[in-house]
Amino acid sequence: MVNIKELLKETPQDQLVEVNGWVKTFRSNRFIALNDGSTLNNIQCVVDFENFDEALLKQVTTGAALKVKGKLVASQGRGQAVEIQVNELHIHGTADAETYPIQPKKHSMEFLREQAHLRVRTNTFAAVMRVRSALSFAVHQYFTQNGFYYMHAPIITGSDAEGAGEMFRVTTLDLKNTPLTEEGEVNFKEDFFGKETNLTVSGQLEAEAYAMGLGKVYTFGPTFRAENSNTSRHLAEFWMIEPEMAFYDLKDNMDLAEDFIKEVLKYIVAHCAEDLNFLEKRLLDEEKTKPQAERSELSLLDKLRFVIDNKFVRITYTEAIEILKNSKPNKKKKFQYLIEEWGADLQSEHERFLVEKHFKCPVILYDYPAKIKAFYMRLNEDGKTVRAMDILFPGIGEIVGGSQREERLEVLLEKIEALGIDEKELWWYLDLRKYGTAVHSGFGLGFERLVQFATGMGNIRDVIPFPRTPQNAEF
Amino acid sequence: MVNIKELLKETPQDQLVEVNGWVKTFRSNRFIALNDGSTLNNIQCVVDFENFDEALLKQVTTGAALKVKGKLVASQGRGQAVEIQVNELHIHGTADAETYPIQPKKHSMEFLREQAHLRVRTNTFAAVMRVRSALSFAVHQYFTQNGFYYMHAPIITGSDAEGAGEMFRVTTLDLKNTPLTEEGEVNFKEDFFGKETNLTVSGQLEAEAYAMGLGKVYTFGPTFRAENSNTSRHLAEFWMIEPEMAFYDLKDNMDLAEDFIKEVLKYIVAHCAEDLNFLEKRLLDEEKTKPQAERSELSLLDKLRFVIDNKFVRITYTEAIEILKNSKPNKKKKFQYLIEEWGADLQSEHERFLVEKHFKCPVILYDYPAKIKAFYMRLNEDGKTVRAMDILFPGIGEIVGGSQREERLEVLLEKIEALGIDEKELWWYLDLRKYGTAVHSGFGLGFERLVQFATGMGNIRDVIPFPRTPQNAEF
Repeated sequence: MVNIKELLKETPQDQLVEVNGWVKTFRSNRFIALNDGSTLNNIQCVVDFENFDEALLKQVTTGAALKVKGKLVASQGRGQAVEIQVNELHIHGTADAETYPIQPKKHSMEFLREQAHLRVRTNTFAAVMRVRSALSFAVHQYFTQNGFYYMHAPIITGSDAEGAGEMFRVTTLDLKNTPLTEEGEVNFKEDFFGKETNLTVSGQLEAEAYAMGLGKVYTFGPTFRAENSNTSRHLAEFWMIEPEMAFYDLKDNMDLAEDFIKEVLKYIVAHCAEDLNFLEKRLLDEEKTKPQAERSELSLLDKLRFVIDNKFVRITYTEAIEILKNSKPNKKKKFQYLIEEWGADLQSEHERFLVEKHFKCPVILYDYPAKIKAFYMRLNEDGKTVRAMDILFPGIGEIVGGSQREERLEVLLEKIEALGIDEKELWWYLDLRKYGTAVHSGFGLGFERLVQFATGMGNIRDVIPFPRTPQNAEF
Repeated sequence: MVNIKELLKETPQDQLVEVNGWVKTFRSNRFIALNDGSTLNNIQCVVDFENFDEALLKQVTTGAALKVKGKLVASQGRGQAVEIQVNELHIHGTADAETYPIQPKKHSMEFLREQAHLRVRTNTFAAVMRVRSALSFAVHQYFTQNGFYYMHAPIITGSDAEGAGEMFRVTTLDLKNTPLTEEGEVNFKEDFFGKETNLTVSGQLEAEAYAMGLGKVYTFGPTFRAENSNTSRHLAEFWMIEPEMAFYDLKDNMDLAEDFIKEVLKYIVAHCAEDLNFLEKRLLDEEKTKPQAERSELSLLDKLRFVIDNKFVRITYTEAIEILKNSKPNKKKKFQYLIEEWGADLQSEHERFLVEKHFKCPVILYDYPAKIKAFYMRLNEDGKTVRAMDILFPGIGEIVGGSQREERLEVLLEKIEALGIDEKELWWYLDLRKYGTAVHSGFGLGFERLVQFATGMGNIRDVIPFPRTPQNAEF
């Protein structure tokens, strides 16, 4: 069965072809633009309406599914090299023009989110999802070619020690008659797993266990946050990529992250030209409605090429604080959170200033104060900073967060104790430091943020098929 | 940083090399077998013990992490082509021989399951997980090369209409004080998503929505069953591959499934020779402890080659019933469930008889009775069978379940009504039949079953990093 992507590459020589697809438009009772999702491009199917039943042609409306047979010929019209002279036309399924929601006109993104089962039939969402698919493959290919093993970290987890965010409870208990212990607490012994379980917020700790056996591993799976964040940057369910490497220090980790991002973006520039060109135009149109100051300086493809071609700036947190302290918006009190001293947690406005105004380039910040970072990060010799690194992207903010991990048992134990985490909860994680511990590092990359950057989509809900957000789990 | 897999391919010419890894064994105070997980094979590191501190060498025990520098030379000993003459030895981390659980001896699979964070350091589990990783990549590569787009189906789902099995509830409600409605029911309006939500049992319905826009798609993600099945064949959390294709009928679907399985197995035979050879020997050893009748007739690799090289047998359910009715075990009443008439649901014993005794070959059964299959399967013209297909594998049983989907709105509505499913629950799924419906098909393949077949591991808990089963969500 040939698809339209392949058909459009064929040399037309009057060969008989058969193709299936959905009607994009039907002009002049003669020209059907047919699309099957394999490519952005439609194949033009020319019907000689005098040879077809009028009632049949009436059913050829936007969204109807057709099978078409005919000769593939060079097109006389503009805009396409080949077209089909239709001999046979079969309607698989109609799409009533009165009620079909996806008409050939501009729909709002909000409306299309409510039609998430149909929005992939629009050019925009089909292009976004094809790019998303290509990026996924690029991720797997990159790691495979670089000696990494893919591991599936568990989704349901009995350990909640990482503390990366609020968690969703997973249970089979009867919520109407929750079993209680004698002390009046929920009796999780009666739950499916015999203990409290949640949806994972990160596969990192398990990936560390695997890195300490297989050397270099990565996860690529769903992760969850039960946070009531109704923003264009947050999802309750999103996909995360987490490589973890034995014997890598922080510098190796930064080198890997930078190379990884560049290579997967190169892949889509090479493999998704049509979709990216379309998305670039879409973004330009969208930005025309915005004030000049909010428009991008670079077009979508130029932005991708810029990231691919330029070395990311690397500066320490301490250097960043100096830059921010002396910056115009800080002196003129334009920042909502003024930077006054070392140790301040950086807000989105500060990250954007560094990336978009100061360096105009992706920035890797590293060596953060220990107290604003997670317990598992490697303490530096200064005793106050940790070997953490964040990669900040224009328009997106933090796209990667990573660190060298604390490999020293006694240091890790001190940190855990200071945080009041029960050592027993982390027995197996501590084992990794007891037996054959070594320098190791890793990072996490939120896949949807990468897809946003690659496609220019402003709202994270528009780069995942069925977004999950507070009050929304339709489909 | 060079890994051991790469190092073992180098031509030894006294070049200085540096390598990290974990000690497998240390013989005669002289020969360290070092492994870093990149390959099954170790690199032999030769230390001249007179030049090293005795206290340092005492720390070189199984499981210790080392950095080694020295010359790469041709090995004089047997079993390896190259070895390192060690100049420098650095201990990253020790592994106390008294307490380190993974000693160079035979451990039971049960014991290793309790040490799931360390078991990947054994040859068996490292090999299984490398094969698992290669199979994953083969899956993505196969579909990418064949014009499919990867889609991420939602994990948290508000629709529970598929009814493939018991589900896990996902909630942020306070289980100690569950909010109730005036009628005394759990008030899910107060839950995170404002409705009841569960973990998905299948991404099929959402994949259908995407196939009806992108043409050919596949999912590869975690799915869940809250069933109290404590067997060697069931997991509460497992990974499933679900391709879904617009314009494919049942035959196209069977052709795809067969080709897919053969191609991904070909990939690992080509790319994982060392690991598969090791696993083949492991299986032989394991089977030596079994009675003759329970041993495999074919070795692991022969079994893989057999599947790759032979056409799968395709028979209808009706033909299968005839074969089973007239079979020896049925006549001699050896089956636990005797096959008496058309319509009987096939049990594992029947499937095994067909595959392992009768045909001695993978079998595709199709055209099942409608009443033992799911509502969304395409009703045949006979009005009593559906276009379902299952692929049965020796030793594994059902590895694929698929069907052509019911594309006719009125037939689907009738089925839904007969089952008492609320039409409103499936509004979006029905939309796919209202607007541009067409013949389409798909299947689901349990990834862990495929890994079991590929690696010869008998228990499904041993082919996933951190298995989730009733009463078990450790790590």
